[in-house]
Amino acid sequence: MPQGIKVPTPTLERLATYFTVLSDMRTRHVDTISSADIEERTGINAAQFRKDLSYFGEFGRPGIGYKVDDLYARIGRILKLEKTQPVILVGAGNLGSALVGYPALRAENFQIVAAFDNNYNKIGKQLWDLTIHDISSIIEENGSLGAKIAIIAVPAQAAQDVAEMLVKAGIKNILNFAPAVLRLPPDVIVRNVDFVQELAVLSFHLPAN
Amino acid sequence: MPQGIKVPTPTLERLATYFTVLSDMRTRHVDTISSADIEERTGINAAQFRKDLSYFGEFGRPGIGYKVDDLYARIGRILKLEKTQPVILVGAGNLGSALVGYPALRAENFQIVAAFDNNYNKIGKQLWDLTIHDISSIIEENGSLGAKIAIIAVPAQAAQDVAEMLVKAGIKNILNFAPAVLRLPPDVIVRNVDFVQELAVLSFHLPAN
Repeated sequence: MPQGIKVPTPTLERLATYFTVLSDMRTRHVDTISSADIEERTGINAAQFRKDLSYFGEFGRPGIGYKVDDLYARIGRILKLEKTQPVILVGAGNLGSALVGYPALRAENFQIVAAFDNNYNKIGKQLWDLTIHDISSIIEENGSLGAKIAIIAVPAQAAQDVAEMLVKAGIKNILNFAPAVLRLPPDVIVRNVDFVQELAVLSFHLPAN
Repeated sequence: MPQGIKVPTPTLERLATYFTVLSDMRTRHVDTISSADIEERTGINAAQFRKDLSYFGEFGRPGIGYKVDDLYARIGRILKLEKTQPVILVGAGNLGSALVGYPALRAENFQIVAAFDNNYNKIGKQLWDLTIHDISSIIEENGSLGAKIAIIAVPAQAAQDVAEMLVKAGIKNILNFAPAVLRLPPDVIVRNVDFVQELAVLSFHLPAN
């Protein structure tokens, strides 16, 4: 990527979508794809796809299309998915457990390497193949783990405190599942996944009755 | 809302965020808020907040602000969250189980009323207080349930088939957790929650090493 060019977040989101599609095509031994194939598979139009790639240099060949393996590898490098990325989980409840057991995470090189909670009934117990650690030890633990991404899966009222602990532990990339708005330093990147918000948008579109 | 005005999706997403904040303020017995309070709590600037509300008429009073209860009730009506909304779940795995047990859903009036799966080892078993039904009975079952919103929490390769069954069962509002792009008729509204995509966007922002 040329220095100094800021890639828009929607472009990054679409790159992740292309990566998922390419991953699927690789498992089905598809060799080449066109931007029209991408449009058909994703609903993202072919011109948008080409524009998204154009931030990162030259891809594909006119009239031939894109080699699936090459494009997969290049997008993987852009998104830094080419090697396993350690991820910390805070919140060993039902959702946290589902995330540790979620096969698609590991398939795309994210590995939850440690789980933390503040509940003394959970600390020391197992969550799948992980031992649940005391959240108060996170700075020390992450000193050796070196994770740079964390997932927050705690109740809303605990999320801000947890996020601040994560920042102190050197983590500046947070995926937040708690239905809470986190206030953090500007260099911390937070992506929120709010199921209730998503359902509320669907609900708005329901017919009146 | 005036007839014929299309509300932008980001406005709807922000309305859901305001609703969450107002819900929290109500439990803390806050009486009145200003758009500056909203900005402080959400990071959404005060002018944007007022613009979002302006799609739906007059709110608040200059110099006084907004009554928390009134604003909560009005946004609830706009998003059709003022009464319990039945929701169907397809996929009784770890994620589906976490969703049924997720307290924030019920707190905002979404209730998962039925769970479906295609795995004969799961059908007939319990998922929390629900009995898991055979996915092939969904049209019949939803004839009596009348749910208009469904959640897909199945593996990617099963998601398209499930989505088509849901549409046949009369459901046109789908929250999709499967990392798959669904192709459905244009009157079906799909919201995708893709954990891996969110992690990939965070991963992009990691420092190179």
